[in-house]
Amino acid sequence: MDPARDRFARTPSPPYWAVMFSSQRSPEDPEGYGRMAAALADLAPGQPGFLGMESVRGEDGFGITLAFWESESAIAAWKRLAAHQHAQRLGHERWYDEFFLRIARVERAYTKATSTREGL
Amino acid sequence: MDPARDRFARTPSPPYWAVMFSSQRSPEDPEGYGRMAAALADLAPGQPGFLGMESVRGEDGFGITLAFWESESAIAAWKRLAAHQHAQRLGHERWYDEFFLRIARVERAYTKATSTREGL
Repeated sequence: MDPARDRFARTPSPPYWAVMFSSQRSPEDPEGYGRMAAALADLAPGQPGFLGMESVRGEDGFGITLAFWESESAIAAWKRLAAHQHAQRLGHERWYDEFFLRIARVERAYTKATSTREGL
Repeated sequence: MDPARDRFARTPSPPYWAVMFSSQRSPEDPEGYGRMAAALADLAPGQPGFLGMESVRGEDGFGITLAFWESESAIAAWKRLAAHQHAQRLGHERWYDEFFLRIARVERAYTKATSTREGL
């Protein structure tokens, strides 16, 4: 596989759901944060309704993670998962100076290839 | 203002619309790309229905940009804008090895402060 493509979630045709998590990391606890981020990234693909994830963080600590799910109930179940709730608490207390979490229903999607076909 | 907060779009209460643009930059034309990205970032806030933008790109060239709009028709008008169409063509031909564009209706949103109140 082209390594440049590995960063993309291979989501199916819409509709599906997206969680947009935009965050500003605090300077605190980079090791603990890194371990938890890796653990959650390993855990999510085993959850019911998980469709993929895309994530990037810049050198200034601002990052955006997109997680894609089949349904709102799949998102709710992920939110309730014990390991994830622990991460949410530490995120509040320690890891994030600020964050925005937005939950959205994806209605249309294109890739570079399909956007050409659609005349974009 | 807290400089860490500057990277966040101060979006209103949902519902509103989001364009999620995930992209892998090619190694080509960094100067032209940088000029166009800056020009579009200047242009978007003047467009009808624009609510804000958040963007980050990593050192490997993978990036995510979120643009928030009041309505689907505002997104469609932005897509048709001449300067933006020119950028879309160059994006296809030159700047992006791959991209995903997803259009979604934002149903719920929280910040660090409001997620605490909501019991997350």
